[in-house]
Amino acid sequence: MKLIFAEVITIGDEILYGQITDTNTKWISENLDKIGIKTKRKSSVGDDRNEILSILNESLQRADIVLITGGLGPTKDDITKKTLAGFFDDHLVINPHAEAFIRQFFEKRGREFTEINRQQAAIPSRCTYLHNATGTAPGMWFEKDGKIIVSMPGVPVEMHYLMENEVLPRLKKRFELPEIIHQVVRTIGLGESFLAEKISEWEDSLPENLKLAYLPSFGEVKLRITGVDFDYKKLRNQIDDEVKKLVPIINDFIYSTDNENIEEVIGKLLIQKNQKVSVAESCTGGYLSHLFTSIPGSSAYFMGGIVSYSNEAKMEVLKVKQETLTKFGAVSEETVKEMAIGAKNLLKTDYAISTSGIAGPDGGTPEKPVGTVWLAVTDGTETLTKKLTLGNQRLVNIQYSGKAALNLLRSMINKESR
Amino acid sequence: MKLIFAEVITIGDEILYGQITDTNTKWISENLDKIGIKTKRKSSVGDDRNEILSILNESLQRADIVLITGGLGPTKDDITKKTLAGFFDDHLVINPHAEAFIRQFFEKRGREFTEINRQQAAIPSRCTYLHNATGTAPGMWFEKDGKIIVSMPGVPVEMHYLMENEVLPRLKKRFELPEIIHQVVRTIGLGESFLAEKISEWEDSLPENLKLAYLPSFGEVKLRITGVDFDYKKLRNQIDDEVKKLVPIINDFIYSTDNENIEEVIGKLLIQKNQKVSVAESCTGGYLSHLFTSIPGSSAYFMGGIVSYSNEAKMEVLKVKQETLTKFGAVSEETVKEMAIGAKNLLKTDYAISTSGIAGPDGGTPEKPVGTVWLAVTDGTETLTKKLTLGNQRLVNIQYSGKAALNLLRSMINKESR
Repeated sequence: MKLIFAEVITIGDEILYGQITDTNTKWISENLDKIGIKTKRKSSVGDDRNEILSILNESLQRADIVLITGGLGPTKDDITKKTLAGFFDDHLVINPHAEAFIRQFFEKRGREFTEINRQQAAIPSRCTYLHNATGTAPGMWFEKDGKIIVSMPGVPVEMHYLMENEVLPRLKKRFELPEIIHQVVRTIGLGESFLAEKISEWEDSLPENLKLAYLPSFGEVKLRITGVDFDYKKLRNQIDDEVKKLVPIINDFIYSTDNENIEEVIGKLLIQKNQKVSVAESCTGGYLSHLFTSIPGSSAYFMGGIVSYSNEAKMEVLKVKQETLTKFGAVSEETVKEMAIGAKNLLKTDYAISTSGIAGPDGGTPEKPVGTVWLAVTDGTETLTKKLTLGNQRLVNIQYSGKAALNLLRSMINKESR
Repeated sequence: MKLIFAEVITIGDEILYGQITDTNTKWISENLDKIGIKTKRKSSVGDDRNEILSILNESLQRADIVLITGGLGPTKDDITKKTLAGFFDDHLVINPHAEAFIRQFFEKRGREFTEINRQQAAIPSRCTYLHNATGTAPGMWFEKDGKIIVSMPGVPVEMHYLMENEVLPRLKKRFELPEIIHQVVRTIGLGESFLAEKISEWEDSLPENLKLAYLPSFGEVKLRITGVDFDYKKLRNQIDDEVKKLVPIINDFIYSTDNENIEEVIGKLLIQKNQKVSVAESCTGGYLSHLFTSIPGSSAYFMGGIVSYSNEAKMEVLKVKQETLTKFGAVSEETVKEMAIGAKNLLKTDYAISTSGIAGPDGGTPEKPVGTVWLAVTDGTETLTKKLTLGNQRLVNIQYSGKAALNLLRSMINKESR
């Protein structure tokens, strides 16, 4: 089996100085891996002509494909394009497709199309133009001595667009690649080591060519099964068989066998049952609504939310009783129950979810330390609650609580379906 | 001025295949930068002897310091330590300090101290042992031809401990290091190329030792001025002078000269003026509230928000008139005005912000294509509105609109302060 190797290069002083985390190289190598291309090395260099030329030469000696991101902005500090033109002994010319697109890009946004913007359309004369529908820096595809070099902008959404629409399809055509299947089973509510114990027998009996990885984040654990083979059908059947064996072992904790996130899974359930949901958020502060509304088409089942960040908002809008707040406090089982019921009544939905907690980093008390979070979900008849005890990192607490609240709703919907 | 250069190498197949995001290199270069050491290149290679030897040789040719993380686990796939011993023509010996510590580490946790664990204490005989209080893999400090090579475990908390307690203090003693200052001026509301045009004269007149970079994201552009000098006071004054010259040129677009994000800046303004704010969100779907509430202490000025994702919620909760929705539609200047006023009245705040738009990717019409967004901010007397024309990527539109809405509030607060 002849393997194809790639190297990934990110260009930019901001990465080198540690001012931003480079997420591009992970994304790229993960997506190369999916189509059967192995990454051999990853490098980051600054906006420096000599450094760019030297890493390019080195990478081409080791790999079949070199993918580069960054350094394609319109400003003077970005020198990747010029450097590439020099490397290929070429010169920059305005690409008419790029020019037309960029002009339209600016006109659509009511902004002037200046000469600096026009220069964004200049690319080396002998490279293949890769259309970037998401921004003003085109992608560029070069070939040299049977090897491929691709340059893309460093803005993640633009790089993703180019990779998905231009680069990955071309690479698949260009090389004979094995099939790689990653099947991701998503679980929530059980820690990594407990999950590992429960499925250890199944894990030990996996065929040699399948690899299992545990990927934990925010109370979820993704189980990734990976297989490589030139025979797609055989591999597909083999993995399907293993998933079928896995599901009954941890059924209560699996919410997707197909790598959907929980907000998608819930959206599908609600559409299927023609039901609607609303939320009342305190400590998650809008994040739970954001999880719902980040799914296209969510307006079909998400009616709205109340971010009741003050006691006044809880009382005035959600009709939480003053007595409840005084007696039990804003962070209490009693308050989240009334919040959920208040949201359900106000927005006239089938379900409502609520959150209240101390997100931190400060504001805790001995009885209610930072990281104490109460969740509730109601269908009008029954109200489920759950208490979380988290750490003191504000954003982590917000994100964890949002996901856990969604899982509480999922439990209720599933219970009613039985 | 003699600068000291470092290279950072991460070792591990899991990074190469894109299974985990490498956060170590960012952390390391950020912390090197703080003590005046420039990172020249970052590389990731797999758990492969030849690859490790080759990157080590290359890095030593370019840099004074090479920092390595990863590949120090007890299992067979981790080969960094043996490879380093080979590289330095040395052999592994059990370090008694390391052995005593690791034995205690296991005993404390009630786990057996096996021979595999004991081998964790083996390090090349001529390296300096660096004590790792957070785990079982020691750090190792090597010197060769006046250059420094350090090997650390890849687990972030262990690497942080070693860097903070062992590596950074030794580097500061070992080299005479300059001061590095990064001053980040944050702007919003003007695209990168327009900003570049406006400040091109200032940019061209920057002293040679200062470098400018443009860092754009979601309608914001950060301008980073970087300077290096052995004389801190001189450098500080020089940068302050340049910022003073820059501010009047683009005053309307600058919201922080000190790298604060816009939600922090607004929070400080509101605390200072003892004023409160609320929001009414349609297309941003909770994200605008999330921006506010991601700041610790935001409950002092953020009273709450209404995510009115349905027309019913807009009418029932925010008191938007049915007539307005029928005549102008949910995505209109008229509707966002009424939404903002509705939120202000309901939550009794000094200001209220509202958003309504078509986030996409579907749902547009010829008159109101995907990416059409209306924003409003009101103080009860005056209501400012703004229309955005964005692309068709849902999450980008949500994030861009949230930031732009915050900027509209900033304009209103600043206007009233004049």
